[in-house]
Amino acid sequence: MPLESDSEPSRDWKQTVNQLRAIMRPQSIAVIGASRNPKKEGFRLTQNLLEFGFEKIYPINPSAHEILGLPAYRTIMDVPDPVDLVTIIIPPEAVPKVLKQCADKGVNAAVIRTEGFAEVGVAGKKLQEALIEIIKETNIRVIGPNTTGLLNTSPPVFTTSTFVDPKNLRTGVVGWIAQTGMFAGAILRHIMSSERFGISKVLGLGNMIDIDAADGLYYLAEDAQTRVIAMYLEGIKEGPRFVHAAQVATTRKPVIVLKGGKTPEGAAAAVSHTASLAGNHQIFTTAAKQAGITLVDDFRELINVTKAFAFQPLPPTSPKRRCRVGVCGFSGAINILATDSIAQLGLQLATFSEATSEKLMEVFTDDVKAMNPIDTYPDSYRVGEERVFQVAIRAILEEEQVDAVLISVYAVEEMDFHPVSITNAISNRKDKPILVTVVGTKSEVELWRNFLETRRIPIYEFPSEAVKVLAKMDAYARYKTWLEQNREEP
Amino acid sequence: MPLESDSEPSRDWKQTVNQLRAIMRPQSIAVIGASRNPKKEGFRLTQNLLEFGFEKIYPINPSAHEILGLPAYRTIMDVPDPVDLVTIIIPPEAVPKVLKQCADKGVNAAVIRTEGFAEVGVAGKKLQEALIEIIKETNIRVIGPNTTGLLNTSPPVFTTSTFVDPKNLRTGVVGWIAQTGMFAGAILRHIMSSERFGISKVLGLGNMIDIDAADGLYYLAEDAQTRVIAMYLEGIKEGPRFVHAAQVATTRKPVIVLKGGKTPEGAAAAVSHTASLAGNHQIFTTAAKQAGITLVDDFRELINVTKAFAFQPLPPTSPKRRCRVGVCGFSGAINILATDSIAQLGLQLATFSEATSEKLMEVFTDDVKAMNPIDTYPDSYRVGEERVFQVAIRAILEEEQVDAVLISVYAVEEMDFHPVSITNAISNRKDKPILVTVVGTKSEVELWRNFLETRRIPIYEFPSEAVKVLAKMDAYARYKTWLEQNREEP
Repeated sequence: MPLESDSEPSRDWKQTVNQLRAIMRPQSIAVIGASRNPKKEGFRLTQNLLEFGFEKIYPINPSAHEILGLPAYRTIMDVPDPVDLVTIIIPPEAVPKVLKQCADKGVNAAVIRTEGFAEVGVAGKKLQEALIEIIKETNIRVIGPNTTGLLNTSPPVFTTSTFVDPKNLRTGVVGWIAQTGMFAGAILRHIMSSERFGISKVLGLGNMIDIDAADGLYYLAEDAQTRVIAMYLEGIKEGPRFVHAAQVATTRKPVIVLKGGKTPEGAAAAVSHTASLAGNHQIFTTAAKQAGITLVDDFRELINVTKAFAFQPLPPTSPKRRCRVGVCGFSGAINILATDSIAQLGLQLATFSEATSEKLMEVFTDDVKAMNPIDTYPDSYRVGEERVFQVAIRAILEEEQVDAVLISVYAVEEMDFHPVSITNAISNRKDKPILVTVVGTKSEVELWRNFLETRRIPIYEFPSEAVKVLAKMDAYARYKTWLEQNREEP
Repeated sequence: MPLESDSEPSRDWKQTVNQLRAIMRPQSIAVIGASRNPKKEGFRLTQNLLEFGFEKIYPINPSAHEILGLPAYRTIMDVPDPVDLVTIIIPPEAVPKVLKQCADKGVNAAVIRTEGFAEVGVAGKKLQEALIEIIKETNIRVIGPNTTGLLNTSPPVFTTSTFVDPKNLRTGVVGWIAQTGMFAGAILRHIMSSERFGISKVLGLGNMIDIDAADGLYYLAEDAQTRVIAMYLEGIKEGPRFVHAAQVATTRKPVIVLKGGKTPEGAAAAVSHTASLAGNHQIFTTAAKQAGITLVDDFRELINVTKAFAFQPLPPTSPKRRCRVGVCGFSGAINILATDSIAQLGLQLATFSEATSEKLMEVFTDDVKAMNPIDTYPDSYRVGEERVFQVAIRAILEEEQVDAVLISVYAVEEMDFHPVSITNAISNRKDKPILVTVVGTKSEVELWRNFLETRRIPIYEFPSEAVKVLAKMDAYARYKTWLEQNREEP
């Protein structure tokens, strides 16, 4: 099934996309290794499917007649109906035989949750090779092994044993591809409780013996519900195919990648996690950038950049011009640090036209504080925080020489300043990205963040974080403009 | 008063330290510009002093007989008793005359809260020069203008108009020097509501026409209550004196500096904030590093590094050996990213001795997962999260080839894993720094963070953040060892 790296990489991808589409919307799922014991993964996995409202579930267990109220079957062969997808959570030694049975039964795809394959050593490697043989000999597609598998928020499918309350799972535009179980566990739980963007799909890849990161990219590139693709990746199976998939995806939507195993030490650790060969990081970085991928350094930045892409438009920049940022903030120090970050990351501090300066002088008494960056602090004492910010935000948004806006506010109990002033000032303008930083009393910051992120304005703590995000948006915007311009030329 | 930069910089600093000691513990304070109007800064400033339990407060206001229950005086000259410190919050034009009166009255020092001096242009500059003349002609010491001034948590003194509930202000070991009002406002409020380290003193510097960053450093270096010095700085008045002050301070305690105005664009913005000349950043960086200063890039990092220094011991490293980190975490991906950060920042992934491996094999079935970084995930299913982490943490702490420990956990509702397992495993070992990252469901993460930070274990979100902090601790530890070794040599 894997393509040779010198073949035309685009040949099979449309077929894979169609297969993944079916895999992501199965009509029926068998859980091989389903259990009556609430402490076992096979119990939670079955329970999750039930809680997600999935209807045709077939628990497979040689010694149970009924699991969670569902009739159980000894083997997959005993299921009387057709089965679209199986999830396998049984000891590794038993997996090859069972996978073969699934293929014989005509199952389209298997998510192999089981660990203990190439990531643990020689014996596991042999078992993994046996699985690869079965894939080659049959038509079954495999996700994993050593993976949490699939999550689709609509229609709901979830092949993972971690506890997730579907009521708290927000459907949205971010599709995740992850070579780690963290995305179905800790990170998903973080997103559900702390973030306000929604998820379209999660594809957990594990050891990638069949479906790999490139397949995931092709699939999410074509998925209409997904508008932003976020990835955590350790290894790449075939460089050229991955680059092609990224090129296909980045013409349509941003692709943000966090790569584990950047250093030889990290790469060594990756071998025992997903049996990945992390490869030369310099080569990966160069290829990824050429393919328009947005590279980030850690999970925090992955989330920071993802939410900005999910919430805000791209800056109207071009390959010839870096993003010109309009800044207004409550503190001279905050503005100076924002300006430092803007200059350090190669963005530009926007120059205001005279018309903008005039608008600002409605509330600002000192023309220096009415320049970019705008220091709202001195005049907020006189005319109120709300008025100063509203005048400043409107003026910046109307300024033609501004491509993106950075607003910094503080939130403390005694202030007569509600985030609705910000959204009122923004009104319905959607032609340039707006990022906001908030610092102050915890509960008030939380209130601001909740109010604004629910209205698709991403919140950060301090400007350096937000400017880093803007720089990534700018780079992707310029890549897209470059693509469009080159397409128009003969 | 300011030293020439070619003079011996150590000459006057002990006198300044003694003066600042007195300034920080005044027996009596006059508020010049005290007000009956709750919306005015002169009201809140007086109210804050009352709420902080300060006893001898003299409100000065030409048209009030009583403010907040205290008898008010027309001018400072009308106060019948000696006054140690004045805070001035009146229009800038009136400040020179009043400052002269204070000097004549024999007041030791003035905090000039008033804005509108060199930071706003030519007229302000002239006013500021008039203040400098008065300082030269008299013995009065001045903090500011354009500053929030002083905060001492014990005995309580607070010269700022922002609302701060003294009940929520934790007394502790961190002394702040800040060239921004943010430290008495948004950042202080953040610290009070979100951080668990305590504050010894805050020195707000403003335009630094007399007391400057070097003075603050000398003072906090000698202050027994302060064990960590954190600074936000825009300009430096005299390079050699600042470097000397930093050298004096860093032999005794860590000094962490966030510098605004690193770029020409940021430096231009600093002129209109505190009238600071930010200077050449490369020269500053080199001098600061040579003086043992810990430089950070933004407020988040300033807080991250400060809390680690406040809570944890330095790693036992030396100039010849970088910090060897022992890592244990709940996720292969988290460990790989931690390892990448360790290698990228020039730290070392510790090598475990055979004795440590043997201890680990008590609970780990796979010897690969029992190596550094230790992946607790696979075996936690079998023997429980608590046991796996406890065995791992004890083994790492006992390993002689480990200088610092990084632990990564996830926190979700259904887990039978309480942070007390971590503190039990650590027991009372205080010979190497321990940093913990937590991610998961917001409320659970909060619970972990609160439990562990209350017990002096600093918490971060993801490993890259924590490893950055470790790298800073390592650099300072090596600087200190180098100093000690060079002192011993003839």
